[in-house]
Amino acid sequence: MAQQHLDPRNSTAVAADALAGYLRAQATEFLRALRTHRETGGGAAGGAEESTDAALALRRSARRISGTLHTFRPLLDADWSESLHPELAWLSGTLGREHAYAARLDRLVAALNRLSGAAAALPSQAGAPVGGRTAGAERAGPSGPGGTGTRAPATPDRGNLTIGAAKAGALLDRQLTLARTRAHSAALQALGSSRFHAVADSVAVLASEVPLTPTAAALDLRPLAAAAHDRLRDAVAGLPLLTAGHPYNAEALIHGLSPDTAPHPQDAPWHQVRLLLRLHRYALEVLHPQAVPVDVRLLAAGEALNRHRDASEAASAAAAAARTPRIAPATAYALGVLHADQRHEVEAARFAFQQSWQKETVSTS
Amino acid sequence: MAQQHLDPRNSTAVAADALAGYLRAQATEFLRALRTHRETGGGAAGGAEESTDAALALRRSARRISGTLHTFRPLLDADWSESLHPELAWLSGTLGREHAYAARLDRLVAALNRLSGAAAALPSQAGAPVGGRTAGAERAGPSGPGGTGTRAPATPDRGNLTIGAAKAGALLDRQLTLARTRAHSAALQALGSSRFHAVADSVAVLASEVPLTPTAAALDLRPLAAAAHDRLRDAVAGLPLLTAGHPYNAEALIHGLSPDTAPHPQDAPWHQVRLLLRLHRYALEVLHPQAVPVDVRLLAAGEALNRHRDASEAASAAAAAARTPRIAPATAYALGVLHADQRHEVEAARFAFQQSWQKETVSTS
Repeated sequence: MAQQHLDPRNSTAVAADALAGYLRAQATEFLRALRTHRETGGGAAGGAEESTDAALALRRSARRISGTLHTFRPLLDADWSESLHPELAWLSGTLGREHAYAARLDRLVAALNRLSGAAAALPSQAGAPVGGRTAGAERAGPSGPGGTGTRAPATPDRGNLTIGAAKAGALLDRQLTLARTRAHSAALQALGSSRFHAVADSVAVLASEVPLTPTAAALDLRPLAAAAHDRLRDAVAGLPLLTAGHPYNAEALIHGLSPDTAPHPQDAPWHQVRLLLRLHRYALEVLHPQAVPVDVRLLAAGEALNRHRDASEAASAAAAAARTPRIAPATAYALGVLHADQRHEVEAARFAFQQSWQKETVSTS
Repeated sequence: MAQQHLDPRNSTAVAADALAGYLRAQATEFLRALRTHRETGGGAAGGAEESTDAALALRRSARRISGTLHTFRPLLDADWSESLHPELAWLSGTLGREHAYAARLDRLVAALNRLSGAAAALPSQAGAPVGGRTAGAERAGPSGPGGTGTRAPATPDRGNLTIGAAKAGALLDRQLTLARTRAHSAALQALGSSRFHAVADSVAVLASEVPLTPTAAALDLRPLAAAAHDRLRDAVAGLPLLTAGHPYNAEALIHGLSPDTAPHPQDAPWHQVRLLLRLHRYALEVLHPQAVPVDVRLLAAGEALNRHRDASEAASAAAAAARTPRIAPATAYALGVLHADQRHEVEAARFAFQQSWQKETVSTS
């Protein structure tokens, strides 16, 4: 079904009405999530899980509105669009951080367990609690920490670990839980700020009236969606896919020990493709609001890029933890193994993307 | 050409004469290498490279004689064969160790350079000198250390490295050069021992007269070669090839942080296949003395298994170095990255073996 949707040029003309309808629907979702967030106490004890879900839903709508303003800019009132766009980016960035730190800790703890041959212990290792209950509870199994109110075992099971791995886990737990707690506070503060209230007011207006340009009604959305698709294709064409498609090319760990502590520059083009793929997906949602879920291979490519981003950031977190002063050599060793393991994951994600993208282009060309 | 040789059953009957001819030829090679070794001073200054080559040639013949005694045991005088076999194994083990330590250091230094983004500096990084000149000189480029008599830069170029990687390189250099020097002395001592003289005397007899059993002349070599082939196939059937053929399965680094410091138990069946593949190759050499080189895919499979063994041992050396007391955390971190990198190489080698073996069985079935 979704096959012909991949290239926006393949569909019939889509009028500006579809854009207005999509933006109204997303604005409505945004307001609903905001209401839920307020009703569940905004992260206070007793409602943290629903509140976290609501914050993620808020972010989901903010990203879609933001991406749509970007792709279909010529059809929208320029002043309005240009003032709202950066505010939505700020909001989704602020709301996403807590979840990202929790997921990063989960990923690193899972890797430490796997590297210690304790993979069976994984399902109960989801995130540590912030604000009463654990934001990671939805990922935990029946025996997980959700709802108990006690501290979740975010550090690996020491019985199966060397002291180095156990200490590395404890260090990462400390650092990432601290970062997560700060992100949680920052998100709560942001949601109470006058800056956020201005965004919410703009979105409330959008829910009833989308500020289209006077000529928008006569325009076809497809060329703009196609341009978003072209930007994605061009960016993908710039990726080293030939190398990525060759298993065990050992590219991702190059510079693994370089003195540069900045994020890997080789990852940046992949992160950029990830963003462009998301914009393409949102443009398809505008054009084909009924075509949910979108093409599974597009989702697979997006998931590979998410995994790439997650592994890249987890590898950086392990490297950063290794620069903590006065750690034991065994801890540093475990963090080195962990860093390399996550860079290996980065390489695996590139391979997975290359495989799904290849299928993509073969079947749509 | 060599395609039909893979299964020994596919050739015409081969008489015991071929076995005697092969053993005589290998014994002659052994004696020639021994003479060269003595003439070049057995590792004293001025002739180390030729001497090292001669020692490797000695080992090459010793392994072939030993493997042939094993595969075609029923055709050979039992007492003689059973007394010579362990002595040849002792000799080839003793002679191989120096080279193995040198190659391990080369591999680890090359990896440290690659991980530091200094891969261009590789060709001049071949082994450190033992006994005057470097055994690694034949691997060095025109700018390499061979023949200069000065110390080769076995540690990585510090300009491109973090202190951690540079210190890790220096530590590995120290440990593996010491091990290599000891292995060199042990090999020289072995070659001067009465135990070795007894082996050399046995091989000298073998060069003129192979002690076949009275019934050997009437026997066909093929069933015994086929049995060696079957042992290889059975061992390969026990390998986790399905997993190995799935890129980035992350199997090789499981237990990468386990408290067990022994070599990875998961590597043992692969090492076993490596030995059985070599026995199969030697049996083919007996059956088809003119078919040189043997099938390229058989060589590719063997090379993948050599790489597997080398990476496995290099990973262990990095882990062992990390257990050196009082090292800096940055050094330990670099060794952790290096260990994981080499385990990644182990996984890559398994994938390469799976690929070549698949071709093998498809084309010969």
